[in-house]
Amino acid sequence: MEVIEEGGEVLFITQKGKKYLVKVRDGRQFHSSEGYVELGQLIGKRYGHRLKTNTGSTWVACKPTLLDKIMLGYPRVTQIVYPKDLGYIVLMSGVRSGSRVVEGGTGAAALTTILAYYVAPTGKVYSYDIEERYLENAAKQLERAGLLEYVELKHGDLTKQIDEREVDAVILDIPTPWLAAHTAWEALKDGGILVSISPTIEQVVETVEALREHGFADIETVEILLRNMRVRRGMTRPVHLMHAHTAYITTARKAYRETLEG
Amino acid sequence: MEVIEEGGEVLFITQKGKKYLVKVRDGRQFHSSEGYVELGQLIGKRYGHRLKTNTGSTWVACKPTLLDKIMLGYPRVTQIVYPKDLGYIVLMSGVRSGSRVVEGGTGAAALTTILAYYVAPTGKVYSYDIEERYLENAAKQLERAGLLEYVELKHGDLTKQIDEREVDAVILDIPTPWLAAHTAWEALKDGGILVSISPTIEQVVETVEALREHGFADIETVEILLRNMRVRRGMTRPVHLMHAHTAYITTARKAYRETLEG
Amino acid sequence: MEVIEEGGEVLFITQKGKKYLVKVRDGRQFHSSEGYVELGQLIGKRYGHRLKTNTGSTWVACKPTLLDKIMLGYPRVTQIVYPKDLGYIVLMSGVRSGSRVVEGGTGAAALTTILAYYVAPTGKVYSYDIEERYLENAAKQLERAGLLEYVELKHGDLTKQIDEREVDAVILDIPTPWLAAHTAWEALKDGGILVSISPTIEQVVETVEALREHGFADIETVEILLRNMRVRRGMTRPVHLMHAHTAYITTARKAYRETLEG
Amino acid sequence: MEVIEEGGEVLFITQKGKKYLVKVRDGRQFHSSEGYVELGQLIGKRYGHRLKTNTGSTWVACKPTLLDKIMLGYPRVTQIVYPKDLGYIVLMSGVRSGSRVVEGGTGAAALTTILAYYVAPTGKVYSYDIEERYLENAAKQLERAGLLEYVELKHGDLTKQIDEREVDAVILDIPTPWLAAHTAWEALKDGGILVSISPTIEQVVETVEALREHGFADIETVEILLRNMRVRRGMTRPVHLMHAHTAYITTARKAYRETLEG
Repeated sequence: MEVIEEGGEVLFITQKGKKYLVKVRDGRQFHSSEGYVELGQLIGKRYGHRLKTNTGSTWVACKPTLLDKIMLGYPRVTQIVYPKDLGYIVLMSGVRSGSRVVEGGTGAAALTTILAYYVAPTGKVYSYDIEERYLENAAKQLERAGLLEYVELKHGDLTKQIDEREVDAVILDIPTPWLAAHTAWEALKDGGILVSISPTIEQVVETVEALREHGFADIETVEILLRNMRVRRGMTRPVHLMHAHTAYITTARKAYRETLEG
Repeated sequence: MEVIEEGGEVLFITQKGKKYLVKVRDGRQFHSSEGYVELGQLIGKRYGHRLKTNTGSTWVACKPTLLDKIMLGYPRVTQIVYPKDLGYIVLMSGVRSGSRVVEGGTGAAALTTILAYYVAPTGKVYSYDIEERYLENAAKQLERAGLLEYVELKHGDLTKQIDEREVDAVILDIPTPWLAAHTAWEALKDGGILVSISPTIEQVVETVEALREHGFADIETVEILLRNMRVRRGMTRPVHLMHAHTAYITTARKAYRETLEG
Repeated sequence: MEVIEEGGEVLFITQKGKKYLVKVRDGRQFHSSEGYVELGQLIGKRYGHRLKTNTGSTWVACKPTLLDKIMLGYPRVTQIVYPKDLGYIVLMSGVRSGSRVVEGGTGAAALTTILAYYVAPTGKVYSYDIEERYLENAAKQLERAGLLEYVELKHGDLTKQIDEREVDAVILDIPTPWLAAHTAWEALKDGGILVSISPTIEQVVETVEALREHGFADIETVEILLRNMRVRRGMTRPVHLMHAHTAYITTARKAYRETLEG
Repeated sequence: MEVIEEGGEVLFITQKGKKYLVKVRDGRQFHSSEGYVELGQLIGKRYGHRLKTNTGSTWVACKPTLLDKIMLGYPRVTQIVYPKDLGYIVLMSGVRSGSRVVEGGTGAAALTTILAYYVAPTGKVYSYDIEERYLENAAKQLERAGLLEYVELKHGDLTKQIDEREVDAVILDIPTPWLAAHTAWEALKDGGILVSISPTIEQVVETVEALREHGFADIETVEILLRNMRVRRGMTRPVHLMHAHTAYITTARKAYRETLEG
């Protein structure tokens, strides 16, 4: 039975549903608008314990998941990819244990981390960025998440050059994905999956037209909307506000560009 | 370079965007509303080749992905879980290589297959169903997909009994998930993830209330909407019809039911 | 108490929820996949009566609303504007009894009819189309709906010329609304509302940019999604399919183009 | 040409798109986070004039529409009905010049005002509320909007009693609409429209079941989602946040409860 240790992280879920990622230090307190808790009392206890703040609010001390660490702990050096989109990207790209994936830009490394989690322990993520500081941040976050060994961080522009060949997937989260249609094609194996993430519709149009010209097949663009429900007997309804847009996701498959002479 | 073999499967994507999963047999033809093609010409060729039907329509012969096989090839013995929901479930459950997951009902085995794909090569899916014929169908589909060794198909009712302990996730796609709140709790490790999939809001209310009573934390219910875009320069818009509802997805974490005496 | 008359129209709502707009003729039957009914029995009866088909299905014979007549009875000579969009257009345009509105293209006259319904009895709709056959069809439909006197059907291109001045609203449902930014401006009174309906995003971008250049204020573009719910105790959920896209609606106000020297 | 007068209201739309409803007083300033403007300079000028704040921000001084006055000027004594829902309610209820409509609760009078606007000059809105202070507020707002003569404000509970008969529509925005199924039935003419607005799904289920029992026909429940688009050439996308839920809207028609003996 795993227990909470000095120096480890817990996820507090407060009575009002707020979440905090906190490092456990004996003798320290964690303060919020719903009161404070003594962190030391958690040491040696099982994850999932409830505890009371000084003002009587009940919190749960959970073991943080990888998503918690990304969403709450990662510095937002760039716009990050959201869970609703991450799940779709993982599924559609087919990335799993053993996959070899090219990704870029590394950015805040949210997607890099998720990809590393799925390719482990036998695959590899090749993550490109033109900004060295993003790569340095990514190395730090991946190391803390114990996933650095599954990622090769590469300083470079994947619209100019992708070193790898016969990869299973190329995942683009860059401002000009259409410029990478050629390099992605070269890097992918037959039937390999390209995924491109863009916030604006004009980027999508440029990208889809470029993919068509380069002979990609099965080009599809979707947008994923996630509605949270407020579920309580007699008072159930969708929540009032929702993230209505993060990005369009375009998927395509590399198809060999020859036509058979039937 | 992998080539198409006699007896293997190809995914045809037609000029109009329809998809067909077809077994390649020399001397056979495949007929559709967009004309027919001779299958034999594909043997020995690389995946991704284009070919012309007798009526001049251009198709692509792709290598089918696991999702293609599920969506196009699986018998719909029950309602299946759709890709937009599958991706979210995989991500939120944290299931990956090495995970131990309890799932049920097995049903059409779409979710079972996806889970097996992600837990391989070192994890295991324990899939329960009360209908033996669903288990038999699942065994057949999993074997064809090369994933049977990662699944233990179990004849039983997981609202009554789950044999496993300390599992990473329990995923419920049954008519009365609230009845499994207790057995799921017993099976999960601390912080383990429960996912429940239900089409109706009344099922969701029962389930969420039961999870609350059993001390689960971080209970959230969402609905995922996927909008397809028709992308063509000067003619870009969302497509007219969409799958507006498949299921609500509820997630929760097992939290130890003790309150610390601060 | 109004009763059903020979030669009048009834709206049948079948047990399965299908709707049919039918002219009542003594001695005639109306046949559907849910059986047939004798029309003569309805004559002299109140609207709302239930009746049984020969196969035992129960239907309701309602008095058709204007929307029923439009959605079920109008020839679809062009794409029509849907109720979810019509309501928003009526509200945002401020069109009501006494309003003077320019509209075009007339097209299938769905929007024309609705506008006429709201401007009556003291306002006027000036409806332009370049296709005479659409105007002829519109005249026929408006006459049957008893609304022709509130509409002036005009053969012309409102991107070239709008004859009216000081109108309350201009409503554009044409392929190139951006070309009408100038003529609409001239026709509108200060603060008058422009509404433009376009299916594609590229049309919207052109239109919004043109409106900005012409000094319109408060330019907003929205898309309205309508989700139908299947409501039945214990089985409630959104319906599976929805009309995910019909058109983007852009609204703007004419603002005098001078800047005050404060 | 209408001009801005001392004591009249203008709608300021700021450079950042914020909206303020402001009473024009000579010698006064209006301050915002985008600087301030001198109000006196507007007197005698046409609506739509641009003006500069002291910090160089450009605003437009528009003539406020009825919706502006409701959304920006009405005290939120209760939750108000939003434009996306108002438009649909107006259209589906068929309310227009000359209609007789029963409505309740009066609440913040947003819906009351809109209904009054459409029934004028020959129809009437009978608006019920059990809270006298809401009726007093409604009287004040309707008077300022010049619409009080089209409304009869009634102190009473429409689940207990509706005085009117043969009305065109009954519109319910109360916590227990199912209790008004009987009184609404009595008040409506054959084919008259009932509209019910409820935030939670449990209210909808109760209401729909009650309407079914009372013999209403064509019962439909919808939810309207409005997506705002950020339109700018090369940067076009849906806006990030949206009002994901306000209310479910149920519509039904009174159908005479007899079955014909065919």
